[in-house]
Amino acid sequence: REDATDRVDVPGVATGLAVTGVGGDVLFVETARLDDDGGKGSLHLTGQLGDVMQESATIALSFLRSHAEELQLDGTALGGRFHVHFPAGAIPKDGPSAGVTMTTALASLVTGRKVRAGVGMTGEVTLQGKVLPIGGVKQKVLAAHRSGLDTVLLPKRNEADIDDVPESVRDAMTIHFVEDVRDVLSLALEPVE
Amino acid sequence: REDATDRVDVPGVATGLAVTGVGGDVLFVETARLDDDGGKGSLHLTGQLGDVMQESATIALSFLRSHAEELQLDGTALGGRFHVHFPAGAIPKDGPSAGVTMTTALASLVTGRKVRAGVGMTGEVTLQGKVLPIGGVKQKVLAAHRSGLDTVLLPKRNEADIDDVPESVRDAMTIHFVEDVRDVLSLALEPVE
Amino acid sequence: REDATDRVDVPGVATGLAVTGVGGDVLFVETARLDDDGGKGSLHLTGQLGDVMQESATIALSFLRSHAEELQLDGTALGGRFHVHFPAGAIPKDGPSAGVTMTTALASLVTGRKVRAGVGMTGEVTLQGKVLPIGGVKQKVLAAHRSGLDTVLLPKRNEADIDDVPESVRDAMTIHFVEDVRDVLSLALEPVE
Amino acid sequence: REDATDRVDVPGVATGLAVTGVGGDVLFVETARLDDDGGKGSLHLTGQLGDVMQESATIALSFLRSHAEELQLDGTALGGRFHVHFPAGAIPKDGPSAGVTMTTALASLVTGRKVRAGVGMTGEVTLQGKVLPIGGVKQKVLAAHRSGLDTVLLPKRNEADIDDVPESVRDAMTIHFVEDVRDVLSLALEPVE
Amino acid sequence: REDATDRVDVPGVATGLAVTGVGGDVLFVETARLDDDGGKGSLHLTGQLGDVMQESATIALSFLRSHAEELQLDGTALGGRFHVHFPAGAIPKDGPSAGVTMTTALASLVTGRKVRAGVGMTGEVTLQGKVLPIGGVKQKVLAAHRSGLDTVLLPKRNEADIDDVPESVRDAMTIHFVEDVRDVLSLALEPVE
Amino acid sequence: REDATDRVDVPGVATGLAVTGVGGDVLFVETARLDDDGGKGSLHLTGQLGDVMQESATIALSFLRSHAEELQLDGTALGGRFHVHFPAGAIPKDGPSAGVTMTTALASLVTGRKVRAGVGMTGEVTLQGKVLPIGGVKQKVLAAHRSGLDTVLLPKRNEADIDDVPESVRDAMTIHFVEDVRDVLSLALEPVE
Ligand SMILES: [Ca+2]
Ligand SMILES: [Ca+2]
Ligand SMILES: [Ca+2]
Ligand SMILES: [Ca+2]
Ligand SMILES: [Ca+2]
Ligand SMILES: [Ca+2]
Ligand SMILES: [Ca+2]
Ligand SMILES: [Ca+2]
Ligand SMILES: [Ca+2]
Ligand SMILES: [Ca+2]
Ligand SMILES: [Ca+2]
Ligand SMILES: [Ca+2]
Repeated sequence: REDATDRVDVPGVATGLAVTGVGGDVLFVETARLDDDGGKGSLHLTGQLGDVMQESATIALSFLRSHAEELQLDGTALGGRFHVHFPAGAIPKDGPSAGVTMTTALASLVTGRKVRAGVGMTGEVTLQGKVLPIGGVKQKVLAAHRSGLDTVLLPKRNEADIDDVPESVRDAMTIHFVEDVRDVLSLALEPVE
Repeated sequence: REDATDRVDVPGVATGLAVTGVGGDVLFVETARLDDDGGKGSLHLTGQLGDVMQESATIALSFLRSHAEELQLDGTALGGRFHVHFPAGAIPKDGPSAGVTMTTALASLVTGRKVRAGVGMTGEVTLQGKVLPIGGVKQKVLAAHRSGLDTVLLPKRNEADIDDVPESVRDAMTIHFVEDVRDVLSLALEPVE
Repeated sequence: REDATDRVDVPGVATGLAVTGVGGDVLFVETARLDDDGGKGSLHLTGQLGDVMQESATIALSFLRSHAEELQLDGTALGGRFHVHFPAGAIPKDGPSAGVTMTTALASLVTGRKVRAGVGMTGEVTLQGKVLPIGGVKQKVLAAHRSGLDTVLLPKRNEADIDDVPESVRDAMTIHFVEDVRDVLSLALEPVE
Repeated sequence: REDATDRVDVPGVATGLAVTGVGGDVLFVETARLDDDGGKGSLHLTGQLGDVMQESATIALSFLRSHAEELQLDGTALGGRFHVHFPAGAIPKDGPSAGVTMTTALASLVTGRKVRAGVGMTGEVTLQGKVLPIGGVKQKVLAAHRSGLDTVLLPKRNEADIDDVPESVRDAMTIHFVEDVRDVLSLALEPVE
Repeated sequence: REDATDRVDVPGVATGLAVTGVGGDVLFVETARLDDDGGKGSLHLTGQLGDVMQESATIALSFLRSHAEELQLDGTALGGRFHVHFPAGAIPKDGPSAGVTMTTALASLVTGRKVRAGVGMTGEVTLQGKVLPIGGVKQKVLAAHRSGLDTVLLPKRNEADIDDVPESVRDAMTIHFVEDVRDVLSLALEPVE
Repeated sequence: REDATDRVDVPGVATGLAVTGVGGDVLFVETARLDDDGGKGSLHLTGQLGDVMQESATIALSFLRSHAEELQLDGTALGGRFHVHFPAGAIPKDGPSAGVTMTTALASLVTGRKVRAGVGMTGEVTLQGKVLPIGGVKQKVLAAHRSGLDTVLLPKRNEADIDDVPESVRDAMTIHFVEDVRDVLSLALEPVE
């Protein structure tokens, strides 16, 4: 098994948490900026993503674009064309819970700030940046722990679900509950180098 | 449960009322302006919207664009590309009854006038701005009440259906019956700050 | 029930006649001009229209565009992008018999001439402007009468079907039989104000 | 029943012959030039045409465009966007045998030369202008006769099928057998006025 | 039955060989250049072609475009939009074996060099110009012979299949086995006039 | 059987390894650059590729484009439109394991550096260039050996699977295990001529 912390050693990559048929798993998102797209801002999505997950990707980009000034992001860079990929390429994936992860990966890419090693995250994001609750908290936190992550970001409205996680795992991890994706970005992105 | 009034603290968000499998619920619509789209005016829609609801969104934008002068709206701003999202992202939604809500959210966005806290609404809108009747009045008003809203805007042609709502709830709420979406905008949007 | 004559108080709206599962009904068509579309002339259609009805809408616009000079219409205005909507938004509609109604509504919109109050119409239109026969004459005329219309425009080739309408209704209505949509425009549009 | 000769009193309309479920029938094709399409040359097709018939329409236009000089046609006019409609709008139609009719109608439109009154035609056209054989000769000729046409253009390779037509009808009609759509254009188009 | 040699009397037409339900047949491909397409190079395909055959057409054009200099072809001409049609229009066709025929017809069109009368061909083409083996050698050669062709071009890797063809037919025909579509072009195209 | 080493005698061609219904096989990928595509960078894919394999192709191109500077590739050349074809054209193919092969073929094309004769490869590529494990190691290595290849590039994470390959074959081949597609490019591409 690959160590999850190896994958985020460049800007544009973030570590999500997913529920699979056999428990939880970490789920990397990789992003690249392909060209300036005439300033339109578009996404090329791969990894056999279902329609909910594809919509979730466009919400992540639209949130960043429509709040670029507030977030001190480069609006011109965000107007480009992005490729967002979720390995492994043959495994179908769906659902809204990678919203925070995609938002973070794209913000990392356009700022050049890497995602902190050891941070995993999960949560639906709305167009306003609200973080909505997701399922599978227990499996996701266990998978994060197993993969060598030390910090997990979860939706505030999932706070009650953390009781399902064994205390030993909870004690070994730093868990943040967030209501707004702005807090995810603050917690997950490294400072500018 | 989130307090519905928290969500409309920025321009571009409005609170609709929906019928779900298990009664009624409030339904937020979030809007963002992505770019100027060469003045064409288009919509990017997310939230697993069915085809009737997608058509309804285009009617909302077309009404505002073709009546911009009368409504004192910025026609250039309305010629942009908009993202309209209905959380939660994985729940399919359909029907024409969010027409007034989308019209209000888009008008809020381009004017910068917030939607009044505490106002929920439902009603189909036509391209002329007529408000047509919808179903589920009882469930919708009860959901509005439960969610902390104090004012509900309903189609005039649903006036008879209000009898189904318990008198205690009716007494606790301000209910407006409207024939034209212009009246919705007057009642729902805060004055320019 | 709404009075049909209220709806045509602005240019761009016309009253058609349709057969539904339970008899006939009036069917409004609303039109708006969205932008100039680079002179290409296109349609955005809503109201859950079937493919025959969608084709019918393009025939209406193509007829007007290719006969603009003869009809003294503004060819530049007709080169724009139009939204054509048939309320109610959730009810599927199909068939070619709203051809005359769409042609009239679009001509009304670009000329600024309102459709005469009290006029309902039905008939397929060809690209040359010929009016072809339709079904459901009896139900349509009865629905027009019930809705407060006083004049009905029908295809010439449906002349024999008028016998099915009760004499009392026929006497109360003015019925015109037309072979060409040019005659529909002459009979239905108010003079320039 | 409408007299078929009335329909071709303007350039751009030609009379085809079709086999229907209950024998043969005349089939009008109406054409209009919508705009210059940036010189690309495209077709908007209506009348519930099947895919073979849609391909046949593009072959007709491509033949005319790629042989414009030889045929002394206006290449710029042929680079426009055309609407080709086959009434009645709700009746599905398919097959390659309206190839000669569409070629003739488009040539008529761009030259301003009307199609001769009384001429009906049928035949597949290839991209080189070859006329390939079709089915239903007997029913088509009978339908032409019934509809008041006096001349029929048929593929040379259907010459043997004419024996199936009653002698009285054959004697009453002028029948031309053609191998090339260039001959169809010579026989069917009126001289320049 | 038409004589196959009549069809290739203009540049842009080539004669292929196909297997049908009832043996083999000759299969003409007709090509035309519609316009310059802004130098993009595209294809409009008709004749009810299946997806493998449509891909095969794009391989033919891409081979010619990416080897234009080596093949002394006019790269600008190859950047145009082409219509490629396989009569008869209503008969579905599929498979990769018309690759050499389409390559030859397109090369003929852009050079103005006719395909030699009497030459039929079959073979899959790769993007490098390799000729891959096909099925139905016996039926195809017999069909070529029956149709009056005197020369057949076959893939080198089909050399063993020629034993299935009766010796009398083999003796009457000139048969070339080719490994590369460059050899097909040399053998099939007439010199510049 | 064709010798696999013949196919890579020009830049833009690479040799992959695939699992088929009856064992393994070599699988060539051919690439060509069609035009500059306005700098957008796009792919035209043929060879009956499934959706996973099509996504895999876009990942290959996006990796090269977004790492052009680091890899010393010509970013302008990579912004063109590419045709990527997998013979044979009628055989459906799918899966992510040709990722390294497509990346190599495209890098070969834009650098003009041929792929070394005798090298076969297999492996999924991510947008960061990580090489992920694939299936069918045994069949693929056997097929490489059978086809005359002397070197095989496999994912590092498939190292344990090599035990399944008979020792005689392993001894006859040079096998490299790679973690990053950058290593594939170093091992597989010939030096600049
Ligand atoms: Ca779905
Ligand atoms: Ca802890
Ligand atoms: Ca629907
Ligand atoms: Ca009250
Ligand atoms: Ca239909
Ligand atoms: Ca009367
Ligand atoms: Ca079909
Ligand atoms: Ca005669
Ligand atoms: Ca297929
Ligand atoms: Ca011989
Ligand atoms: Ca698939
Ligand atoms: Ca070895």
